[in-house]
Amino acid sequence: MESSADSTTGSSPCFVTSVRVAFGDCDPANIVYFPNFYRWLDQSTHDLCEAAGFELVAVRRERQWVGFPLAEAGARFHRPATINDQLRIETRVREWRPKMFLLDHRIFRDGLLLVEGWQTRFIGVHLPGQGRRLAALPIPREFIQAVDRLMT
Amino acid sequence: MESSADSTTGSSPCFVTSVRVAFGDCDPANIVYFPNFYRWLDQSTHDLCEAAGFELVAVRRERQWVGFPLAEAGARFHRPATINDQLRIETRVREWRPKMFLLDHRIFRDGLLLVEGWQTRFIGVHLPGQGRRLAALPIPREFIQAVDRLMT
Amino acid sequence: MESSADSTTGSSPCFVTSVRVAFGDCDPANIVYFPNFYRWLDQSTHDLCEAAGFELVAVRRERQWVGFPLAEAGARFHRPATINDQLRIETRVREWRPKMFLLDHRIFRDGLLLVEGWQTRFIGVHLPGQGRRLAALPIPREFIQAVDRLMT
Amino acid sequence: MESSADSTTGSSPCFVTSVRVAFGDCDPANIVYFPNFYRWLDQSTHDLCEAAGFELVAVRRERQWVGFPLAEAGARFHRPATINDQLRIETRVREWRPKMFLLDHRIFRDGLLLVEGWQTRFIGVHLPGQGRRLAALPIPREFIQAVDRLMT
Repeated sequence: MESSADSTTGSSPCFVTSVRVAFGDCDPANIVYFPNFYRWLDQSTHDLCEAAGFELVAVRRERQWVGFPLAEAGARFHRPATINDQLRIETRVREWRPKMFLLDHRIFRDGLLLVEGWQTRFIGVHLPGQGRRLAALPIPREFIQAVDRLMT
Repeated sequence: MESSADSTTGSSPCFVTSVRVAFGDCDPANIVYFPNFYRWLDQSTHDLCEAAGFELVAVRRERQWVGFPLAEAGARFHRPATINDQLRIETRVREWRPKMFLLDHRIFRDGLLLVEGWQTRFIGVHLPGQGRRLAALPIPREFIQAVDRLMT
Repeated sequence: MESSADSTTGSSPCFVTSVRVAFGDCDPANIVYFPNFYRWLDQSTHDLCEAAGFELVAVRRERQWVGFPLAEAGARFHRPATINDQLRIETRVREWRPKMFLLDHRIFRDGLLLVEGWQTRFIGVHLPGQGRRLAALPIPREFIQAVDRLMT
Repeated sequence: MESSADSTTGSSPCFVTSVRVAFGDCDPANIVYFPNFYRWLDQSTHDLCEAAGFELVAVRRERQWVGFPLAEAGARFHRPATINDQLRIETRVREWRPKMFLLDHRIFRDGLLLVEGWQTRFIGVHLPGQGRRLAALPIPREFIQAVDRLMT
């Protein structure tokens, strides 16, 4: 992953990770089985948070955050990917809300846009008496600043 | 799966399937890892097509359809599910377009809405000289009628 | 799943579950991607434990067992399975050791043996000062009796 | 991946790859859900074959090999891995048989042995009139030489 800004492929600074498609990621149509794209977009968000200083194991242990759960996620699949394709994943934070952050993802192969994804996330915490339902923490200013710094 | 119409939980007739959450479907937050929801919504669409007489292995062999690829898919996650939860999945076709069909999904546990999903699908075929990119077949009238019949 | 004994296919009483192969379980060779077999054998063991009265969520909450981790697992793949195959999974406990239990699994399609699997499991508990490494609980007599009762 | 020989951790030359554990690879016990280890060992074998000049997409297209299917696979799980662990995977060919090759794998984290795996593989081809069952090609001498060359 590259923690520095990158603006060559998209129109604005972004955080870049990469993934190589495995045989086992593909289906009988010989293309990536689509839920795997969501796995990779999930990982790219975790990589972004880690690069910003909020590594998942650490925030779980030190801040009692459960993680960065999804309120919504979607994707448009423009072109398929297949075995051993090298994919470039661009991640941008589109919007900060008081308790939510909205991410945009774009997946490329050799400069060709394959997938556009979006996610609405929050910082999940367990509140007393709420069972396993996760509450959304007001997003700390230091988190916003650290993430934004990766994209300028 | 139930191939008959069912209107008790949602507001209109739908196709109903079910799934039980496995230990391995859940993540360190002790809830379903979200890409698995897409796996189950994928299967519910395949079950719908099969109930309508368009079983995947058969259409691949007899009609040279590759399957029912996704152009777009998304979901809103209202509440988590966890190990051994019994989930009810409702599927509806919201709209038929000339080469696309739009599906809505709702996932319930004990009458409680957990997830709302949507998919835009087409009937994928290989056209000569197009490589692995899939073309969208004009949706046959018999397919529309057979699917609609499951929901009235 | 059937909690009663069944001796028609194998040579001795066993616990029987079933699974239907999904499109997404298969790979570009159009057959089940083999790690999925391990997923299903994992689930069949969990189903066996549940039928014996040791449901995973309950033992995690009430007995502070982490679950039934694997010390070893293997499989011989005799014939492939493909999309929409209906599989029958037979599970037997081959041996009880003081802190381990050994399971044998056989997966059939229409009476044809596809896969033979084996697992060595223990009851995992967290001991103070051992970090995330799991300790093996001496297997309680009531657990052995309840599981054995399902296979006679 | 490193295509050069490496003998620091194990007792003989081997092929080395690496993988980083993702959040979604882990289960409610906060450790890698074991079928994922088989996914990674599968990939390490594919990486070995590619480094030897037998990349999967190429051999499927140019030689009509289906791939490198498994006849048997197993693993001993000594210690768990968890989120963001960086794993080193060592792969060795233990034995060449006329139509089978036997592989040994060892997974380490910081020099600590976590998992030992083994696989029996063959080169799968479709023979006329055999349906979807895969036949085993006599292993070509050039394949053996190219793989062995990576481990000396």
